[in-house]
Amino acid sequence: MPGTPAPDARRKLVAGAADMIRRRGLNATSVRELAKYARAPLGSTYHYFPGGKTQLATEAVTFAAELTTKLLTRELERGPVEGLRAFLAMWRDTLTDTDFRAGCPVLAVVVEDLPEAEGAPREAAATAFASWTDLIAASLTEHGAEPTDARGTATLVIAAVEGSVALCRAEQSTEPLDRIAEQLEFLVRCAITRTRP
Amino acid sequence: MPGTPAPDARRKLVAGAADMIRRRGLNATSVRELAKYARAPLGSTYHYFPGGKTQLATEAVTFAAELTTKLLTRELERGPVEGLRAFLAMWRDTLTDTDFRAGCPVLAVVVEDLPEAEGAPREAAATAFASWTDLIAASLTEHGAEPTDARGTATLVIAAVEGSVALCRAEQSTEPLDRIAEQLEFLVRCAITRTRP
Repeated sequence: MPGTPAPDARRKLVAGAADMIRRRGLNATSVRELAKYARAPLGSTYHYFPGGKTQLATEAVTFAAELTTKLLTRELERGPVEGLRAFLAMWRDTLTDTDFRAGCPVLAVVVEDLPEAEGAPREAAATAFASWTDLIAASLTEHGAEPTDARGTATLVIAAVEGSVALCRAEQSTEPLDRIAEQLEFLVRCAITRTRP
Repeated sequence: MPGTPAPDARRKLVAGAADMIRRRGLNATSVRELAKYARAPLGSTYHYFPGGKTQLATEAVTFAAELTTKLLTRELERGPVEGLRAFLAMWRDTLTDTDFRAGCPVLAVVVEDLPEAEGAPREAAATAFASWTDLIAASLTEHGAEPTDARGTATLVIAAVEGSVALCRAEQSTEPLDRIAEQLEFLVRCAITRTRP
């Protein structure tokens, strides 16, 4: 778009890449495909991402991770149960808004093996998962959980939500997400009340 | 291999496709790539899979699903906790045996959006997830769990294990899987003792 400041155009491309990856996966995503997808000139797309697909995917993962980090940071202020509910609601919306065609771009980049030299998207994904886990674990600890249990519970929340989004795409239904919600809420309550029957 | 009976050669190709998909994802898998990967003649590979990549992926998902179904059926006979432990151990072995380069082929096919006409691999994945969930839920019910809770717990086990395998690939470590193990075992015990504090 003429007149659009470069940072916005660049950010739009990164957002477009995250959207492509969460729908089609990493292998189907390329600088060329992104230019088509985002209706941007191929030259400028290559200009912004001289590192090609690896750079694009890494930035897309980091972009998507930050959106989730912001949501978790904001919602966990209301407590771990409320944070969990908001996290689940966000994924539910993603699935229903896209007719089950989109999932998590962070997960997408780690289920395709990459050559060693192209490890940056995977590393960005590891950072994302770790930072989400840390946020939830910190909220649990703050609300009374024992640190090791907080970490285990937080890891389970991230793993279960990521897995259930894939189950929902398979079934074309939000049922798996709805079914795990109650279980996760129970676990969170057990952690903060230090209840282990 | 000359003299190899056709069903074995075909089965070897399906196993090879499942291995490619769990490593590289669906998009990077094709009949042509499989012939190279399995060192099979391209002509025979096309001969076995006239439906191309869609057929290959569908059969690969079903093949992988059945291996897991067999393991779950066998190990759950010893009880739901033992079944869970065996399921987790299987994934741990997959990750460490492949240096974190392979995950679950069933998950891999559902995180890449496919055209409507190519929905068969996704449908096979939905069937796989549902049958694993049913096996765990049945074992939980048999050991005293309330049916709705059994279903919720079983869905959480499948979702959390699938998600944690992706987390392990991201981190190149089995820690996420080890961390969720204790939480899942706790949940399974709560379900069969009908304990909800």
